[in-house]
Amino acid sequence: MLDNETRSIKLADLETPCLLVDDTQVVRNVARLRTHLDELRIPLRPHLKTVKSMQVARLMLSTQGGSAAVSTLREAEQFAEAGVNDLLYAVGVTPNKLDRVAAIRRRGVDLIIVVDSVTAAEAVAAKSREEKVPIPTLVEIDSDGQRAGIPAHDLPQVVAVARVLHVGGAQLRGIMTHAGASYDCVGIAALEAMAEQERSRAVACAEALREAGLPAPMVSVGSTPTALFARNLQGVTEMRAGVFPFFDLVMAGLDVCKINEIALSVLATVLGHQMEKGQILVDAGWMAMSRDRGTARQKVDQGYGIVCDLSGRPYEDLIMVDAHQEQGLLALRAGSKANLPQLPLGSMIRILPNHACATGAQHELYHVVRPGSQEIVATWPRFRGW
Amino acid sequence: MLDNETRSIKLADLETPCLLVDDTQVVRNVARLRTHLDELRIPLRPHLKTVKSMQVARLMLSTQGGSAAVSTLREAEQFAEAGVNDLLYAVGVTPNKLDRVAAIRRRGVDLIIVVDSVTAAEAVAAKSREEKVPIPTLVEIDSDGQRAGIPAHDLPQVVAVARVLHVGGAQLRGIMTHAGASYDCVGIAALEAMAEQERSRAVACAEALREAGLPAPMVSVGSTPTALFARNLQGVTEMRAGVFPFFDLVMAGLDVCKINEIALSVLATVLGHQMEKGQILVDAGWMAMSRDRGTARQKVDQGYGIVCDLSGRPYEDLIMVDAHQEQGLLALRAGSKANLPQLPLGSMIRILPNHACATGAQHELYHVVRPGSQEIVATWPRFRGW
Repeated sequence: MLDNETRSIKLADLETPCLLVDDTQVVRNVARLRTHLDELRIPLRPHLKTVKSMQVARLMLSTQGGSAAVSTLREAEQFAEAGVNDLLYAVGVTPNKLDRVAAIRRRGVDLIIVVDSVTAAEAVAAKSREEKVPIPTLVEIDSDGQRAGIPAHDLPQVVAVARVLHVGGAQLRGIMTHAGASYDCVGIAALEAMAEQERSRAVACAEALREAGLPAPMVSVGSTPTALFARNLQGVTEMRAGVFPFFDLVMAGLDVCKINEIALSVLATVLGHQMEKGQILVDAGWMAMSRDRGTARQKVDQGYGIVCDLSGRPYEDLIMVDAHQEQGLLALRAGSKANLPQLPLGSMIRILPNHACATGAQHELYHVVRPGSQEIVATWPRFRGW
Repeated sequence: MLDNETRSIKLADLETPCLLVDDTQVVRNVARLRTHLDELRIPLRPHLKTVKSMQVARLMLSTQGGSAAVSTLREAEQFAEAGVNDLLYAVGVTPNKLDRVAAIRRRGVDLIIVVDSVTAAEAVAAKSREEKVPIPTLVEIDSDGQRAGIPAHDLPQVVAVARVLHVGGAQLRGIMTHAGASYDCVGIAALEAMAEQERSRAVACAEALREAGLPAPMVSVGSTPTALFARNLQGVTEMRAGVFPFFDLVMAGLDVCKINEIALSVLATVLGHQMEKGQILVDAGWMAMSRDRGTARQKVDQGYGIVCDLSGRPYEDLIMVDAHQEQGLLALRAGSKANLPQLPLGSMIRILPNHACATGAQHELYHVVRPGSQEIVATWPRFRGW
């Protein structure tokens, strides 16, 4: 499990800034979602866009071959190379990507794609005929008014797109949706309601296909908040989620996780102080944290992240209030009564990120650490690009 | 100049999303700053943190060996490898980076570092004695109240830090400052005033060193806005600037450049439509654009970027209004009277970025294009990391 073992490297030896992951917390976070979905008897299709690492993916996958979801064809190629052969490319496909889709399928990978228009369905059908192999395809529906997909109430259009796939030579697999609006839900009741909305709308669209005599063996739904708070998944065949192995401050702000369940952090070193302003400067700026300010619209704005000591315990009220390219400014939250901690030049700290997908993407490696230990137990590569 | 030549590749052949650069515009943008600084008789030390590419750096550097500024030691190592041997690491150094600084210097690179405290100066002096080679060091001052540096009015502290370097065994080179507050200046008069503030405060600190009998041969100042709008640089010995070869929408919003002078864009493909909402979806989301929303605080908020046709000409009022990880939502600005352009599935567009440093960092390659041509004349690698 721990590839690229490195021995006797301590946290304090690392070049900063760099990315840390607690793999024992990842295992716990994955177990939490699996336990919940096992109770609902729904298989998990983990979305690997957050982790972009085979070593982390192995902690998330049920079997050697998958299943998994990806957000780019680069991810599909990388995970296929590592033996994952049941993949859903969960972003609407453009016609200029179909050659690459076909090439991945020719490697023996069951790569499923999604479309949300007659035009896209026609392109997939044409490519299926050209390749003489039906490309398995889901019809994406919009269950929350957020981004892509056929509006869930427009059943005639859902059926029309599905029919183009089915009669045109593609392999119609069913319905897919992603309730990204769950990221704006406040409170458990709202999360549960959003999960039910995602489920019921996807299932209604699948029913419409079946009533029209079309196949719909798959009903794929999911987001980390709806996956964890769904109470009933009747009619759904699989759940997708991405950020759940790591969690982040946005998820904590939604009460989806606790702050001490966040498995990802950025290690940084103090490079200076502006004592008149009560500020501490560190060598992690937005290049290390990303520009993501996802908590800015939540009830507690965490700036660019919560500052912790080397063991991962938050300092009271200390956050990264601003970020330049390679410098972060730490200060107490406005109105705090806490004391600014003594962090002399060269002190090392850990910063919990707003958004694990965005912060992770800024780094080439994960350094694996465990609670109560200063040792780096492994270093795992990440990939990126399209 | 055009390494890694690729022949007969057209814009329409590229996998999207990807990064485009117009090298002829880069040459023009560099010439504009050089002409201005030549008139003021000040050498340019280009900051290579924006471009992170030797091929683009070559369009910016005066000579094979530099000079240049960098924001990370990874940049220093990469550019040193390519023959740049006069480098300023323009971010306050942490003690745990001094071994790497010494290693770069042992390669024959004149790597200069900066400090802003007695503690940091002591660490540099100690390392200089240990290595038996004085490390050249600038004292960083804060000329605009923005981030790092000794407050410019605290001349006794400036002298104290300089003296620790000088008597402790380092090589005191002088004064350095960066007026990042220029990014918040509105209008030419404010930019000129900020440039003069940056100059006058740096020069006053250098004078204080000289009056104290300390050497101050270097007075290094700069930011792209102050570099382009300085009217008098008396007492300054070099100007640093980073974003000027590319420019971006933040710079255009400050009237530092025109929109048609932006040399960097992201190529994307239309993947769908939400016609009821007047939205077009493309396959470039925040992973391709970055999460930078730098124009949000300017007089015109450009969302995640201005949308252009394949030739680089903006569509009237069309911007990326929202971004998910791998999907961008295009729509007309609020209140626009323009018509949404006809952009069917598969259409390709170009998006001008808010912040070239942040958008560039999301990509592994530059695809070089020229005005009036669909041909990719070269592909240049970018590096990243620390």
